[in-house]
Amino acid sequence: MNTFRKEHDFLGEKDIPNEVYYGIQTLRALENFNITGIPISKEPLLIQAFGYVKKAAALANLECGVLDPKIAEAICKACDKLINGEYLDQFVTDMIQGGAGTSVNMNANEVIANIGLEIMGHPKGAYQYLHPNNHVNFSQSTNDAYPTAFRLALYVKIGKVISVLNSLQQAFGQKGEEFKEVLKMGRTQLQDAVPMTLGAEFHGYSTTIKEDILRLEEARALICEINMGATAIGTSINAPEGYPEIVTRHLAELTGIPVVLAEDLIEATCDTGAYVQVSGVLKRTAIKISKICNDLRLLSSGPRAGLNEINLPRMQPGSSIMPGKVNPVIPEVVNQTAYYVVGADVTITMAAEAGQLQLNVMEPVIAYSLFSSLSYLQNACNTLTEKCVIGITANEEICKNMVMNSIGIVTSLNPILGYETVSSIAKEALQTGKSVHQITVIERNLIEQSKWDEIFSIENLLNPKFIAS
Amino acid sequence: MNTFRKEHDFLGEKDIPNEVYYGIQTLRALENFNITGIPISKEPLLIQAFGYVKKAAALANLECGVLDPKIAEAICKACDKLINGEYLDQFVTDMIQGGAGTSVNMNANEVIANIGLEIMGHPKGAYQYLHPNNHVNFSQSTNDAYPTAFRLALYVKIGKVISVLNSLQQAFGQKGEEFKEVLKMGRTQLQDAVPMTLGAEFHGYSTTIKEDILRLEEARALICEINMGATAIGTSINAPEGYPEIVTRHLAELTGIPVVLAEDLIEATCDTGAYVQVSGVLKRTAIKISKICNDLRLLSSGPRAGLNEINLPRMQPGSSIMPGKVNPVIPEVVNQTAYYVVGADVTITMAAEAGQLQLNVMEPVIAYSLFSSLSYLQNACNTLTEKCVIGITANEEICKNMVMNSIGIVTSLNPILGYETVSSIAKEALQTGKSVHQITVIERNLIEQSKWDEIFSIENLLNPKFIAS
Amino acid sequence: MNTFRKEHDFLGEKDIPNEVYYGIQTLRALENFNITGIPISKEPLLIQAFGYVKKAAALANLECGVLDPKIAEAICKACDKLINGEYLDQFVTDMIQGGAGTSVNMNANEVIANIGLEIMGHPKGAYQYLHPNNHVNFSQSTNDAYPTAFRLALYVKIGKVISVLNSLQQAFGQKGEEFKEVLKMGRTQLQDAVPMTLGAEFHGYSTTIKEDILRLEEARALICEINMGATAIGTSINAPEGYPEIVTRHLAELTGIPVVLAEDLIEATCDTGAYVQVSGVLKRTAIKISKICNDLRLLSSGPRAGLNEINLPRMQPGSSIMPGKVNPVIPEVVNQTAYYVVGADVTITMAAEAGQLQLNVMEPVIAYSLFSSLSYLQNACNTLTEKCVIGITANEEICKNMVMNSIGIVTSLNPILGYETVSSIAKEALQTGKSVHQITVIERNLIEQSKWDEIFSIENLLNPKFIAS
Amino acid sequence: MNTFRKEHDFLGEKDIPNEVYYGIQTLRALENFNITGIPISKEPLLIQAFGYVKKAAALANLECGVLDPKIAEAICKACDKLINGEYLDQFVTDMIQGGAGTSVNMNANEVIANIGLEIMGHPKGAYQYLHPNNHVNFSQSTNDAYPTAFRLALYVKIGKVISVLNSLQQAFGQKGEEFKEVLKMGRTQLQDAVPMTLGAEFHGYSTTIKEDILRLEEARALICEINMGATAIGTSINAPEGYPEIVTRHLAELTGIPVVLAEDLIEATCDTGAYVQVSGVLKRTAIKISKICNDLRLLSSGPRAGLNEINLPRMQPGSSIMPGKVNPVIPEVVNQTAYYVVGADVTITMAAEAGQLQLNVMEPVIAYSLFSSLSYLQNACNTLTEKCVIGITANEEICKNMVMNSIGIVTSLNPILGYETVSSIAKEALQTGKSVHQITVIERNLIEQSKWDEIFSIENLLNPKFIAS
Repeated sequence: MNTFRKEHDFLGEKDIPNEVYYGIQTLRALENFNITGIPISKEPLLIQAFGYVKKAAALANLECGVLDPKIAEAICKACDKLINGEYLDQFVTDMIQGGAGTSVNMNANEVIANIGLEIMGHPKGAYQYLHPNNHVNFSQSTNDAYPTAFRLALYVKIGKVISVLNSLQQAFGQKGEEFKEVLKMGRTQLQDAVPMTLGAEFHGYSTTIKEDILRLEEARALICEINMGATAIGTSINAPEGYPEIVTRHLAELTGIPVVLAEDLIEATCDTGAYVQVSGVLKRTAIKISKICNDLRLLSSGPRAGLNEINLPRMQPGSSIMPGKVNPVIPEVVNQTAYYVVGADVTITMAAEAGQLQLNVMEPVIAYSLFSSLSYLQNACNTLTEKCVIGITANEEICKNMVMNSIGIVTSLNPILGYETVSSIAKEALQTGKSVHQITVIERNLIEQSKWDEIFSIENLLNPKFIAS
Repeated sequence: MNTFRKEHDFLGEKDIPNEVYYGIQTLRALENFNITGIPISKEPLLIQAFGYVKKAAALANLECGVLDPKIAEAICKACDKLINGEYLDQFVTDMIQGGAGTSVNMNANEVIANIGLEIMGHPKGAYQYLHPNNHVNFSQSTNDAYPTAFRLALYVKIGKVISVLNSLQQAFGQKGEEFKEVLKMGRTQLQDAVPMTLGAEFHGYSTTIKEDILRLEEARALICEINMGATAIGTSINAPEGYPEIVTRHLAELTGIPVVLAEDLIEATCDTGAYVQVSGVLKRTAIKISKICNDLRLLSSGPRAGLNEINLPRMQPGSSIMPGKVNPVIPEVVNQTAYYVVGADVTITMAAEAGQLQLNVMEPVIAYSLFSSLSYLQNACNTLTEKCVIGITANEEICKNMVMNSIGIVTSLNPILGYETVSSIAKEALQTGKSVHQITVIERNLIEQSKWDEIFSIENLLNPKFIAS
Repeated sequence: MNTFRKEHDFLGEKDIPNEVYYGIQTLRALENFNITGIPISKEPLLIQAFGYVKKAAALANLECGVLDPKIAEAICKACDKLINGEYLDQFVTDMIQGGAGTSVNMNANEVIANIGLEIMGHPKGAYQYLHPNNHVNFSQSTNDAYPTAFRLALYVKIGKVISVLNSLQQAFGQKGEEFKEVLKMGRTQLQDAVPMTLGAEFHGYSTTIKEDILRLEEARALICEINMGATAIGTSINAPEGYPEIVTRHLAELTGIPVVLAEDLIEATCDTGAYVQVSGVLKRTAIKISKICNDLRLLSSGPRAGLNEINLPRMQPGSSIMPGKVNPVIPEVVNQTAYYVVGADVTITMAAEAGQLQLNVMEPVIAYSLFSSLSYLQNACNTLTEKCVIGITANEEICKNMVMNSIGIVTSLNPILGYETVSSIAKEALQTGKSVHQITVIERNLIEQSKWDEIFSIENLLNPKFIAS
Repeated sequence: MNTFRKEHDFLGEKDIPNEVYYGIQTLRALENFNITGIPISKEPLLIQAFGYVKKAAALANLECGVLDPKIAEAICKACDKLINGEYLDQFVTDMIQGGAGTSVNMNANEVIANIGLEIMGHPKGAYQYLHPNNHVNFSQSTNDAYPTAFRLALYVKIGKVISVLNSLQQAFGQKGEEFKEVLKMGRTQLQDAVPMTLGAEFHGYSTTIKEDILRLEEARALICEINMGATAIGTSINAPEGYPEIVTRHLAELTGIPVVLAEDLIEATCDTGAYVQVSGVLKRTAIKISKICNDLRLLSSGPRAGLNEINLPRMQPGSSIMPGKVNPVIPEVVNQTAYYVVGADVTITMAAEAGQLQLNVMEPVIAYSLFSSLSYLQNACNTLTEKCVIGITANEEICKNMVMNSIGIVTSLNPILGYETVSSIAKEALQTGKSVHQITVIERNLIEQSKWDEIFSIENLLNPKFIAS
């Protein structure tokens, strides 16, 4: 049989099921916000981060001499449980909520208070001994505790994305090495351009992802600036002297994350610039990988009526009606994830712009969007590496034949014959279907066969040297 | 103890847990796609829609004489179970997947086949009697079955949004009536303009939502165009003569939704214009409601250092540190939802643009984004109505005092005194703090007291008439 | 030598060069706003529209008996000059300005007043005879005059886009007819699917544009709702009885545009929903045409290392270094225009959301963005029609050979052999390079040669019929 | 009388007006692209940058011994003229063009060739002496010359934005100092929070802009990576040994910009990541300044029916109908500019994603969008500083009275009385209209008057200290 305890706040009293660790304010949030149906427990790193934040605050309050050691101890022990991933199911607030994160902060305060009360030997709800606001939230406000926890979680999540990007970069690098002798036609604007190697193409993918990793690391560094001790609006009202620096030090020690205290707490409390920066860089990464996936789908198009230069691993039957058809499903899912990330960036941008005066109340949707983008992109990149890139093979003969059959190789003749003469060769080749060799060497006698052989040796095609007449 | 059955496709063989109703292709999808962690079963209307689509196809195949009546019957019975919401947990494919929906379509084909096999008295996997591709998917392709099911689900979901918008519109309309005698200052560009009534302001909200409902209804009508019978690319390959019209008729009868067959099946199979239209209209609705919520937050700002014209229902304590503070959490959550919808629109736009040649492979992320936007917006609007609008009260005295204290009332003197003279009155009032009445009637003697009384009677302020000298 | 006249407003006095027709408020705007460097005169339709609006207002004021007939006549004659395109260079306000359009409205009021004064035989600036605010702007506010003029201009511009879309649609339709016998491989997800005709593909483009035209016409109809007579905030303050209906009637008669008066003037004065709708539909059109351009670039890729199914007209040398290279520059420029339109839609969306209370002050950037999108898209579509689509030719042999060489044709065997058998044929063809015919008819003896011939006749490939065993 | 010269390319021959310096390829571009109507000459920094690029290339070719010194000298002299801003009107290509910049590069090549020819004493068009492709474009391709010139122009333009941001930051900093004694109510979620100073608020604006300057400087550094010598696709085809490093060195010396050669030229030739990064950071800056402008408009709302804490400089009459009304037109125009920048970021994102294989053909729209965003934002920020921020004044009495009249000051009592007791005080104050002092000190006797005085001294309100019981 369900039993209830009574809790009250300044808006009234409510029955709380006895078994739950959250309290009246969380219950109100649960009743008020039903938007996504996704509770914040779906982001365990955020809950863990609240464990760290509240523990650091308790330690700092203790050090400042404003919190009873027994209460501080109970809070710390309760926080340790959150850090260990326990009580996750008690975090029930909807991902998108009003109130700038107050409901999430109070959810943490209430759960920690009730765990702490049990540790102290009191029943849940006996807040006279350990109070969600007076003790767990001591020297804090939602407006510093929430963004700090958010940033800790972001830091870890960005690290995970960087880690899968490292693997992806290496996978492309290895393919670059593997394919370095595969001669193929380079294309600009989808038109035949000049020869290159498939290895150089894949090495380029590796290079470009390496650059994104650097950008993400820079953006991650910005996330380390926190505003603990700012309390309500950055004036540090109700926080003891020296508290901001002390709590920041504890937090850095507990988490191993190099958090630093913002220089201007008023600014730091309302600013969402760092999130916009992270989202912008994430968007950049997403579309650059999307571009690569577009390439992979194009290069593997066919098998008979497409380019067919490479083969992607065959992951699943591609059609419910067309037997034997296999589609590039892995790049496709990465493209779609990228579009999600771009959309989320617009959401974040609008939410950041909508902040007013001393706080940005739209932070929950920023958190939801950033968390989703990071998770989805991490999953997508991991999938791309494991289920696609490492298994790509080259169709060497097809690649090489397209080069030899092309008109685009005429470009190499420019330094010898000049742009205009070479243009006329190209034009004739296109119109008659003749080969460039036929026109240049045999019919027009413009260069010697030996010169031709020097220019169009495989070696020179793989690594073009400047050859003038 | 878990037992397994063996299933194979043209890529090989796999063990399938015996208790599950999906088969090898769904299992491959499960292994391949782990992006959002949200399975398609989270959208029960989509699964139900597949029940309708597959049943209509079976009936049409039967009518065309190309499907064994016993098999058709088994398929229909299996579909009825999906329509009734059974077997939802068998739909395990990730919301964002590669393959243009093939995995979702095969998930449906396999589950229906295995339910049907049990109905026929065969074990799961005995596809020689009822085959996912040959029978359940008969005369279909993912490329017609999937978008059709998607559209059916969309149709119902848009209807739900329209329904909550109707309630919201009525709630605003009632407040418009309730507040029709409340005189207040109108503001343009956040600067005092001319008087109006609070009722007219709320009536305006009602009007604007009414227009959005009309736009959504128009967009919903576009969704009714389907491409059943197009099969792979719109040439109706492998579909019997007359099948497209027959299956469309069955689908309309089964669902009660006025679906019609697209005139050009090639176009219909690759076009995502209707989704972009729905998303665009949804975005419009979202930002218009977001604008209203911005207004509500502004009008209820304070209580002492803000406008304080209206009171929103007090839903929860607003701060973990500031006692007594209550925030406009409901409008805030609606704003955030609106930003989500705008972001999703960008995702959908990019996905729509990325379609190539005979199919848009990015449809799954379009579906995911549209489903989310519709659900979130429905929830947000419902919350706004129930937890905010219907409980709004007016601070009549405050509203009226701001009018009487304002300079903006001078505008009414224009037709009598001309813009320039009135400007100088306004300027003096601003600089000296004097009232407009003091300057105009007493000091400058520009109009008679009786004329003043006529112009600034409450009646004329509520419904201004043109009064010239 | 430059001479000056003095003008003043309630902020002070300024010297105005005697030759200009605008006055002090326009001069202030010129000094205040230097953002884009693009004056509103770059949108002549907007200036013309102001001519219509101010003339209709003068006629309505006359009809209401509140404006001296001689003044009304002078205003009307001055407006006629604007309608005829004269004095365009007097409209100097920057496209992006603060003030919700007041500067543009005052620019019109001042120019009309001074033209009118000259007509009446007075010098410029003798506003006691004809005043920008008291007479030209009589019964109006920026908040009704500006959006009404904006809507008139939009109406005409949307009509121009519709007109070029009609030509584009016809051009694609003619190509659809021209190519109706060209057999080619259909592709889904860039992988070979089943045969179709090039004519059907181009006919599809025609169909899809036809739908966009319908959507644009619907959106254009919404633009016809105006709020003349709303004056400052929709209460019609300072407008004579009956004026809103009368001015609307005059405006409809003068312009031939079916403008109607909004039912709720309070709502109409702050609502920007119609602009968002137009922009959303324009975005839809843009990305759909962008998708077509992506296809055209893909289908014309090569010439030797691409698909090479079609030839686009050769417009210009494609490279400064690669002789003979020609690029699909026309579709490319259309793609880029489409991305501009999508970005502008986001701008418009944010501006629409940012409106507060009784007015949307961000309307100028909405106007700038919509005008640009409409002009650019009109130009791009016209270019696409004239310089690309009408000159496209097909490479019939290449198209046909890809079909005959494909594995995708196996799909036609499904109804006879079943999905699994046919899958194994496809798999063998892919692995061995053998033709489908070789495996099916000769080696495995699965169907008779005569049946094969029936299925794979050109006739059946062009218009597939359902053929079972 | 107009005279013409004949020029030809491999598509045919055309008449070129004798007085123009551009040639046949530019003329084709002029005919082909009519989208924005804005020629590239509207971006003089880009033309200047082409002068630098072509001069550096000539010097490098000379150093490599592959270019005749007399020709090199003529090219250098012609380039110097472009660098000095001459011949700007010869750059006629539309800002949005197809062809990945080839038309712009050829426009530069042709103009330089013809200027050079005149310097050498030859008539225009005598390309046998100095050829646009063979000489001016020697060792180059559009694909390295164009993005390099684009980057040089970007570098300078970003610098200009940084410069105006520095002024804006200083202006806010000075106001922060000026207002440091102005006590005011802090607000979160538009609800009264706790006291702060107006100085701290403005100092926060200064801080936040300082951070954006740092981000822009980081992004600008990325722009310095160039790919000169990559030629067509990054293989350096047709460039002499060592040329890439040499041309990069010359370019750095000529411009004083610290350009460096990209490590992977294949990657660098197709990557647009740096543009996306710049745009992302610019977007961040824009919305952060937009947020500040929203605040300024809110804080200056009124004068009688708004917050009225500050006064913005009065720039222009605010209404054509409401005398004396003055609007915050400068912040408004900045908001609108910010929305433009956000939209442009979406355009750039889509264009970047659309790049295929060895080149991003959409670079022109990226250039157009970035140039516009940078120019508009520079203008807007300059306007904001000069015409708004430096003239802002505070309404000290109003600010202070709102604090003293507020309930929000109760938060200071938390450490003494606890959250719950204080909540009940706040609740009573709200319901009864009594002051917090009345309830706390006089009626409930909860703290001594002396304690009250300590807590609510102006000094403590300005810089709150932790005061417990």
